[in-house]
Amino acid sequence: MTGHTPAPVTVVGLGAMGRALAEAFIGAGHPTTVWNRTAGKAEPLVARGAVHSLDIADAVAASPLIVACLTTYDATSEALEPAGGALAGRTLITLNSGSPGQARQMADWAAGRGARFLDGAVKNVPEAVGKPDTLLYYSGDRATFDDHEKTLRVLGGDTVHLGTEPDLAALYETAVGGMLLPALVGFFQGTALVTARGLEAASLVRYSVKWLEMIASLLPALAAEVDAGDYANPSSSIGLFHEFIGQEREFWAASGVDVSWHAPLNELVNRAVAEGHRDHSLSALVEVLRKPGPAA
Amino acid sequence: MTGHTPAPVTVVGLGAMGRALAEAFIGAGHPTTVWNRTAGKAEPLVARGAVHSLDIADAVAASPLIVACLTTYDATSEALEPAGGALAGRTLITLNSGSPGQARQMADWAAGRGARFLDGAVKNVPEAVGKPDTLLYYSGDRATFDDHEKTLRVLGGDTVHLGTEPDLAALYETAVGGMLLPALVGFFQGTALVTARGLEAASLVRYSVKWLEMIASLLPALAAEVDAGDYANPSSSIGLFHEFIGQEREFWAASGVDVSWHAPLNELVNRAVAEGHRDHSLSALVEVLRKPGPAA
Repeated sequence: MTGHTPAPVTVVGLGAMGRALAEAFIGAGHPTTVWNRTAGKAEPLVARGAVHSLDIADAVAASPLIVACLTTYDATSEALEPAGGALAGRTLITLNSGSPGQARQMADWAAGRGARFLDGAVKNVPEAVGKPDTLLYYSGDRATFDDHEKTLRVLGGDTVHLGTEPDLAALYETAVGGMLLPALVGFFQGTALVTARGLEAASLVRYSVKWLEMIASLLPALAAEVDAGDYANPSSSIGLFHEFIGQEREFWAASGVDVSWHAPLNELVNRAVAEGHRDHSLSALVEVLRKPGPAA
Repeated sequence: MTGHTPAPVTVVGLGAMGRALAEAFIGAGHPTTVWNRTAGKAEPLVARGAVHSLDIADAVAASPLIVACLTTYDATSEALEPAGGALAGRTLITLNSGSPGQARQMADWAAGRGARFLDGAVKNVPEAVGKPDTLLYYSGDRATFDDHEKTLRVLGGDTVHLGTEPDLAALYETAVGGMLLPALVGFFQGTALVTARGLEAASLVRYSVKWLEMIASLLPALAAEVDAGDYANPSSSIGLFHEFIGQEREFWAASGVDVSWHAPLNELVNRAVAEGHRDHSLSALVEVLRKPGPAA
């Protein structure tokens, strides 16, 4: 794994992300073996120099490092099961979505086959794979990470080892990923609003990008408040949000856009006020979220 | 308003944002008059050279440009009402939150007092006022904007005139602002998750900031899909989100974090699938949002 020759790598799963991973390895000169349940997706990679293995045991045997990028942990263990003993002594890295519990099961599964194991996540779109700023994080045995770090860094310059517990990557993936759907629904709601006025959704992009930058700039102080459990010096108070809920709701209702998804967010703010957080920072919402909510 | 001498400005409302605006004007050499309902907040600005006017009519009469930064349009008209005829021939700019309908009423109110009027929004935190990249946008009469643009640019280098309709700034403010609460609740939920594991909320910040950058990078393509009404070439399909709702929900429930606020978001995804959008881009959610939702 040391020295100047790029180490062989096997990529299992050739969806858009798996193909991007394989392309990055090929581009960096790694002898790259690819496997996919349906064979057709391998062709463009073979044209670029990959070896296409139709048999999963052969694919695994081809490299000391196997990077699996399937949809779930279950799909991964199902795909790799027929490889039998071929995994022993090799390193398996999974880059799919799933819960921390499922990641721990996957780690046990790999250990049962004598494989070293890391779980990881690509925190970006396929087009970003291989770029210097692209973030990927991993968790699991540190020595395993160290042995393969140089190879993994091919996939993104911001490559991080979160810790030795194998489910940390899935934990952070879940914790960080929770912003995606609500933020995008907020954006789509905005596009519904401006397009109803005859304006282009595209006209929102520049302002929304800056707004996301502003939101990002708030996170360090908000996280520090959560860590300190001290919400008493707000830059924006829960009361301020509470004040605008009523008038905002009225406007959205009049706009014809479905804002039924606001109700439980507003309810969180109402509960925070009821629990004495009116003059506290918005970060005090974490105290509400930590309590069991109404039955869903 | 032309020439090399910075024009006099009056700032009405000295909350955190109003103080930041006044400080930026003072720093740029504008003779600055300030007024606030409670007088104490003016002191630090007076120490920096502002004139503190206790009477709103005097404050308005002191400058050709009055920038009002109160909490609502109602608060603004209430505060300015006693100024009587002093507004005639001057320019009033409002930088508070509110709906497009309220912005139109404010424009009528200003017109009734013979004032020129722009409505605007500071798309950032007080600390960002005066910086080259800080975004502020305005709507209303173009000539009024042109006359004061140089002065307004003191507040942020990214100063934009959205259009002549006076409610456009409030429309964009509402459309863009809709991402704030859901994105932050998503972040707080993540902090609840990692702190339950004994990890610091601060450890999430770097990854969440990158995740927001990733989300921002998706917006141009998603907006283009909305504008084209063509959702057939998804980078992420609604079906992919639909697939993960069940397992994600299970995990969050087990984590002890209140995720009741996910239910209507998931319901939007379910409705999109039911309406035939399974293989479409997530941007097809706009089609669901455009229909009347379930009674809230």
